Amino acid sequence: MTGVPRAGVVVTGTEVLGGRVRDANGPWLADRLTELGVDHASTVVVGDRPEDMRETLAWMAAQGFALVITSGGLGPTADDLTVEVVAGFQGRPLVLDEALEGRIAAKLEPLRRRFPDLNVDAWRRGVRKQAIVPEGATVLEPVGTAPGVVVTPAAGGGPTIVVLPGPPSELQAMWPDAAASQELREAIAGAGEFRVRTLRMYGMPESEIAETLRVAEAQGVDLGALEVTTCLRRGEIEVVTRFEPAAEPVYEALEDVIRERHAATLFSDDGSTIDDLVARALLDQGATIATAESCTGGLLAARLTERAGSSAYVLGGVVAYANSAKVHVVGVDPELITRHGAVSPEVAEALALGALRRFDADIGVGITGVAGPGGGTPEKPVGLVCLSAAMRDGRRLTRSVTLPGGRADVRDRSTTVALHLVRRLLHGEGERAATAA
Amino acid sequence: MTGVPRAGVVVTGTEVLGGRVRDANGPWLADRLTELGVDHASTVVVGDRPEDMRETLAWMAAQGFALVITSGGLGPTADDLTVEVVAGFQGRPLVLDEALEGRIAAKLEPLRRRFPDLNVDAWRRGVRKQAIVPEGATVLEPVGTAPGVVVTPAAGGGPTIVVLPGPPSELQAMWPDAAASQELREAIAGAGEFRVRTLRMYGMPESEIAETLRVAEAQGVDLGALEVTTCLRRGEIEVVTRFEPAAEPVYEALEDVIRERHAATLFSDDGSTIDDLVARALLDQGATIATAESCTGGLLAARLTERAGSSAYVLGGVVAYANSAKVHVVGVDPELITRHGAVSPEVAEALALGALRRFDADIGVGITGVAGPGGGTPEKPVGLVCLSAAMRDGRRLTRSVTLPGGRADVRDRSTTVALHLVRRLLHGEGERAATAA
Repeated sequence: MTGVPRAGVVVTGTEVLGGRVRDANGPWLADRLTELGVDHASTVVVGDRPEDMRETLAWMAAQGFALVITSGGLGPTADDLTVEVVAGFQGRPLVLDEALEGRIAAKLEPLRRRFPDLNVDAWRRGVRKQAIVPEGATVLEPVGTAPGVVVTPAAGGGPTIVVLPGPPSELQAMWPDAAASQELREAIAGAGEFRVRTLRMYGMPESEIAETLRVAEAQGVDLGALEVTTCLRRGEIEVVTRFEPAAEPVYEALEDVIRERHAATLFSDDGSTIDDLVARALLDQGATIATAESCTGGLLAARLTERAGSSAYVLGGVVAYANSAKVHVVGVDPELITRHGAVSPEVAEALALGALRRFDADIGVGITGVAGPGGGTPEKPVGLVCLSAAMRDGRRLTRSVTLPGGRADVRDRSTTVALHLVRRLLHGEGERAATAA
Repeated sequence: MTGVPRAGVVVTGTEVLGGRVRDANGPWLADRLTELGVDHASTVVVGDRPEDMRETLAWMAAQGFALVITSGGLGPTADDLTVEVVAGFQGRPLVLDEALEGRIAAKLEPLRRRFPDLNVDAWRRGVRKQAIVPEGATVLEPVGTAPGVVVTPAAGGGPTIVVLPGPPSELQAMWPDAAASQELREAIAGAGEFRVRTLRMYGMPESEIAETLRVAEAQGVDLGALEVTTCLRRGEIEVVTRFEPAAEPVYEALEDVIRERHAATLFSDDGSTIDDLVARALLDQGATIATAESCTGGLLAARLTERAGSSAYVLGGVVAYANSAKVHVVGVDPELITRHGAVSPEVAEALALGALRRFDADIGVGITGVAGPGGGTPEKPVGLVCLSAAMRDGRRLTRSVTLPGGRADVRDRSTTVALHLVRRLLHGEGERAATAA
């Protein structure tokens, strides 16, 4: 990894630093930097204070970064300071770009019409502020209202700074122009090619993969040539390896060891997530799906419909939060709830079958559990979740699991467990029940 | 804000830096640091590389930070390096704490039993690795499996470093011990009191609040004594102000100006979110709620059930993604869909009424829209969402909005619009329809 240009990301905004707004730009930009073949060393989140921004830019320059990308702080309000700070840092005066001012005003016209009581002076000042750019900078045309800029140091000998807006959709739409700019290309000249491979496993503890890495090393795989990171993510183990093309055979050798040792748990070797695999299998088989969720409250349906085009296979679902909803909307036999409790494999199965019937779907999924923090008992502790996936042909898979973490963790992980059940069902697993659906 | 001890957060993990795992710890720790009265200046995300971690600690020390909190890198695998790096940075050798090793092993026993095929040697090595701590450090008892440590510089004259685990539930459970430790208390001696006030507005563009700040300043409000940040968040405008107690009258003056100018849009002045307000109103009125969602695919139900105790008022919902589900599960008249289209105020109302009837709820909410990226037409563009909230007594509020951003933004913001409709309905607004529910 020597000789590769290094890069940093600076996310600005007191609302991001304080956690009131979740940063989506740092992670997204990280992927783009990897694609460019540069070495993304760090992301710094700072508030809307000029001195903290300047301090961060100086630190990244001192580390020899070739490229710095900033996000945020381009709005119309006085606390949006990024362009001013970057201009000062790069030694360039600020100038008004009048043509740009006209283009921003034109873009904002619909907003002005939507709010007829708008203060027009305030609006004009906001437009003008966003058209003030560092002298000699390349302007990236606004997608929303704020333009971006690419700014090299006036005196040479420092990082090229790409200034992008905070709203993720604007930042992402502006990125291709930024990446194509001559200044950015020159800054990262000499970037090599990185390869990134991702393996995902489900149903084993993280210590097992640590052992596998030790075994690989003992068998002569030179792990020094690879950058391997392992992590637990939404209940799955992810092994991501970055390497230079010359190390491809080393990586292949590592992957062979992992494949051999974890054949039963390795479910993805091409970057596909469980969401991708389930969506693909549903599309391939022309199968439709419906859900009946209690503790997850709609999160599984929301996860299934996250992707564009999911209407091809998602019919819908019921959030059966109250027992009355389980009975009257999904059609669960109240007797089952009385006998086994609302959180039981029996009720999970009844929910799956009810979803299947109610929506006339090929697959039904039922989830019921104790998300906590209250409601746990010695027999049914917080974290206990019962899940079932049922297929039109009568096959079923039903599991009870005890998931770690808080309410949000339990709810989120439950959706992962459910997707793995659906995938296995779509791959032909599952026992045919005595009484078919 | 002078004289206040400064602090930084270091989030470690290549999976976080690369965006495969979303960081929840930086934002959470930011709130805790504010509570402690220290000035949280920056959060740095670095990968699992010792040199980058060391570089970050050195930068924070050079800026004179009194306190640094790290999260992550305490796992059993070889890429978990935080304790080793921090020990080196603070000039303290690593030592095995055998009693701690025994306590970790006891905690991990259930995991070992859950995976009978587990490699026991690997498991033991993982336990031992997690029991190796810097000499003289205060150990924070493990909540999950990894202990935290509080480490002061052996030679004095640098930040106290608090090392916490990556899983948010473990980090959060461990925080009280960290905050109570003598080392942390000494590091931040002299921390002053900060006050933080939050105002939230809904239904106006951000430029309006910029103008209000200018007006306040023109009227003599000394904004220099306050740290005011404004941001757009999930479709709402949030104004957060931090100040020292002496500046309380200045803040009061600012709030008066904002109240006067934005009486119609200001909905929260005590930090309450729209979620809090809706939950409180439902509980106060003893009202129940049910949803029927198309484009949001369950996100509104998931948002309503995010909070513990929501089973007191959420009965459930239907995700009516396919038109067949709208008709057969919610009971929407197919004629309405044919005549007005699935995305129409008429169908939104029918969904709201259907939810109300199906679940026998006091309030029903219907959402139907074009989340994109496909499916838009000139008359019904991507971002058009029709929403309706209906009450058992016949009152209704129905709105069509065009929301900006990508698919995820449109879906998320729709839930915010829906919650504001519900709040207004619970406050007695809404027209009584000719044909009552």
